Amino acid sequence: MYAAMGALGLAPSEQDKKFVAPRAGDFSLRGKGAATVVILGAGVAGLTAAYELGKAGYDCTLLEAADRAGGRNLTLRGGDRLDELNGPTQDVTFGQGVYFNAGPARIAPWMVTLDYCRELGIPIETFINDNAAAYVHTNGRTVRSRTARADMYGYVAELLAKATNIGALNRTITKADQETLLDFLRRFGDLGPKLEYEGSMRRGFTKYPAVDLGTPLDLPGSLHQVLAAGTGRAITNNFGYDQATPMFQPVGGMDAIVARLTEAVGQERIKTGARVTKITNLHDGVEVVHEGGSVKADYCIAALPPHILAKIPHNLGAQVTTALRAPVPVAAGKIGLEYGTRWWELEDRIYGGVTETDLDIAHIWYPSHDYHAERGLLVGYYNHERDAELYGALSPEDRRRRALTQGKKIHGEKYRQNVLSSVSIAWERRPHIQGGWVRWPDFDSSFTFLQRPAGRVYFAGDWLTHLIAWQAGAMESARGVVTRLHQRVLQSA
Amino acid sequence: MYAAMGALGLAPSEQDKKFVAPRAGDFSLRGKGAATVVILGAGVAGLTAAYELGKAGYDCTLLEAADRAGGRNLTLRGGDRLDELNGPTQDVTFGQGVYFNAGPARIAPWMVTLDYCRELGIPIETFINDNAAAYVHTNGRTVRSRTARADMYGYVAELLAKATNIGALNRTITKADQETLLDFLRRFGDLGPKLEYEGSMRRGFTKYPAVDLGTPLDLPGSLHQVLAAGTGRAITNNFGYDQATPMFQPVGGMDAIVARLTEAVGQERIKTGARVTKITNLHDGVEVVHEGGSVKADYCIAALPPHILAKIPHNLGAQVTTALRAPVPVAAGKIGLEYGTRWWELEDRIYGGVTETDLDIAHIWYPSHDYHAERGLLVGYYNHERDAELYGALSPEDRRRRALTQGKKIHGEKYRQNVLSSVSIAWERRPHIQGGWVRWPDFDSSFTFLQRPAGRVYFAGDWLTHLIAWQAGAMESARGVVTRLHQRVLQSA
Repeated sequence: MYAAMGALGLAPSEQDKKFVAPRAGDFSLRGKGAATVVILGAGVAGLTAAYELGKAGYDCTLLEAADRAGGRNLTLRGGDRLDELNGPTQDVTFGQGVYFNAGPARIAPWMVTLDYCRELGIPIETFINDNAAAYVHTNGRTVRSRTARADMYGYVAELLAKATNIGALNRTITKADQETLLDFLRRFGDLGPKLEYEGSMRRGFTKYPAVDLGTPLDLPGSLHQVLAAGTGRAITNNFGYDQATPMFQPVGGMDAIVARLTEAVGQERIKTGARVTKITNLHDGVEVVHEGGSVKADYCIAALPPHILAKIPHNLGAQVTTALRAPVPVAAGKIGLEYGTRWWELEDRIYGGVTETDLDIAHIWYPSHDYHAERGLLVGYYNHERDAELYGALSPEDRRRRALTQGKKIHGEKYRQNVLSSVSIAWERRPHIQGGWVRWPDFDSSFTFLQRPAGRVYFAGDWLTHLIAWQAGAMESARGVVTRLHQRVLQSA
Repeated sequence: MYAAMGALGLAPSEQDKKFVAPRAGDFSLRGKGAATVVILGAGVAGLTAAYELGKAGYDCTLLEAADRAGGRNLTLRGGDRLDELNGPTQDVTFGQGVYFNAGPARIAPWMVTLDYCRELGIPIETFINDNAAAYVHTNGRTVRSRTARADMYGYVAELLAKATNIGALNRTITKADQETLLDFLRRFGDLGPKLEYEGSMRRGFTKYPAVDLGTPLDLPGSLHQVLAAGTGRAITNNFGYDQATPMFQPVGGMDAIVARLTEAVGQERIKTGARVTKITNLHDGVEVVHEGGSVKADYCIAALPPHILAKIPHNLGAQVTTALRAPVPVAAGKIGLEYGTRWWELEDRIYGGVTETDLDIAHIWYPSHDYHAERGLLVGYYNHERDAELYGALSPEDRRRRALTQGKKIHGEKYRQNVLSSVSIAWERRPHIQGGWVRWPDFDSSFTFLQRPAGRVYFAGDWLTHLIAWQAGAMESARGVVTRLHQRVLQSA
């Protein structure tokens, strides 16, 4: 059969068979494969696998249990409905143009997700992850992020300058280096002439400079007070390589990635409402039974969450089941609060960014798009683990009530006023998904084991990478799997 | 006359006369004025004054020496021409959609400029002023901004932890506060278990995590090397209240502000090519002679740069001339480099932001818009004072050559390749402007003196504020002046 296909230009030729590893950011499988592949789950991993295999000539079918593709890449708009396991259905009533990225919502610039945005022609815009004008709310106290940072940096600089000047570092660094250090500290902490922190215009103003000099905020609290405020976590939140400024988002909603991938793959290849009920590895292929039928293909890529996959009957062996049960699903929740005015822009001068809190809402996100529009949507909480379980267990009305009560501690009474609508998601309660992401107790032998296929069944998903909870993880995993699958097809051809 | 106008509804009524100070961000003059006002200069100050006076019923005429309104708010596009005093004319040949904000290019969110964007319906987008992926080039060495920051923070944290632990701060802070401080330092510097800085994933990766853990950058240099690198200025550049992240820009070019203000004021009220040659304060008005005619009006607002205004013959008194000569014009320059590919995005993964250098180019700006487009424009230098004078004295070809040679030190040979076109501006050489902004040796009595009108002539501009070199300064000054002028008109009516 392959010889015949080769003659028709459908099977890989000798030249095609030479495998060349793809370059990052410019992925493509070399050579053509003619096998059929059934992909379980049309989330970002499944869609990416189908997209890349399709480019290389494979015939893919995706089985999706839900009534739409995308998995956790979920953007909600007016008219959408949101179901929960054993829970109420929420009707989304957002106004025209308002959307809520209920799943992934930001992309670091080094992530492969941006390459897919480029390749698929999805316009991107800045997602503001750090905003000096946003608040830090810790231990019952609310200050602007810029104020919290100025104070901690100021006192750290003062203390180190003091220690340097009393000779505490004489055995550690040279006098010349001490001078360089003091120069840096003066700048870093905006220290006064005596190398003491006396406040700084970096803290912000009650009235910013204009014709006059403006009115800076009052003087900072004492070192003790600033330390006791406990702003450390909040002001270092964007120090990590995955959270550093700037970040990005597709214009108009994260699901543009799903829409463009679906378009490229072909909507007709995606069977929705097709929950998988059995996976059978055969000597010459894989048979997958689903609600409404069954599919036989040369290969299978199982791109479902591991805890969902573990429950599906299969003949892949006990070690697969054990390995799939290792990662622990993590609860994660978000609420979208739609307001009739963008008071955070008009009154608080907060344009995008995140308010960090030690409350159970964890964060408040302000939208990084449609600035100055009439309406706008805040993310009123984005929490996980215990806090998410707490909110998830409430009714949508009670989640909203609680989120508004918490947000009021930061923004005052206006936070509870003029809320037009809201939608909350509890990912651990989402049908067919049942978790925000997973946590590996250890990246142990199970993690390694599932990187390899079980017979003709491959596993893919962010959960099989070190980019868990990022779409980039799903995409990287898919790239890895299709590369290995393609290599095998070319070698066996 | 006023009584007659009052009867016609043109002059302020008794009720209108009650003056109420405008609210910030929602400016409007209360009551109607029916006076005529001649405004010298259709830059941002002049346009704002005309706009606000127009809303309050005044009849304004703007005299602009150049052939276009906007002053330093200048966005260059293909087809534009750029003149210099005693210098060559540059033809701008940028491709479709490419623009270069040659003057102001970023807006802090607290600035009144954003209010005007809102009021005038100008869409805004994020301007990235801080990018962890951009570079810091100091003392001949190039590292990513994230790396420079991680290293300095790491060592600062380690040193302060060390000083704390040997008891150097025992007389300064309590033991309990020391523990809180150490907690913070561990997080702030990403310190190891011994509270030492051993490098950090925050520094970045040669290969970012994916299916595997990735490959972090090599270990940092020694404390001595990190201090010697001299990155302090670069990594604290955005600590100030005017440079903090996020910042903003109008979509499509800064001159959207000029376009919308012009539209609102009425193009027909702006006489271009009308260089002012004489200002005469009369007992009942002001007469302004310009190239091509003269205008008589009830009041005048002189919104020209002070050093230009100082040279125009007038009868406002010697103290005015002396005061106008106090502020010193500052040279400022920029070059726009148009490339045929956005290599900074594709190869360096730099999406927007600024590379800070100790070279004479000072900064390199990457565009915060049109990500993934085919072409793009970098700002290859943005310097002032001596560095700007140095570049300004060169021919456009030599400015470009020098900028490319400097940029190559950071980005390598690709920086000099595929440059499609370039345009450079030397603001001290711009006709009718002759400076990037001004510097007051002291905000002394001259500064205060010019806040008041000389007879019927008022002065306006960023140079009369504490927001020099910002459009917000021009707007705030204009608001102040029209408020005082209107108050006077209402009181004298």
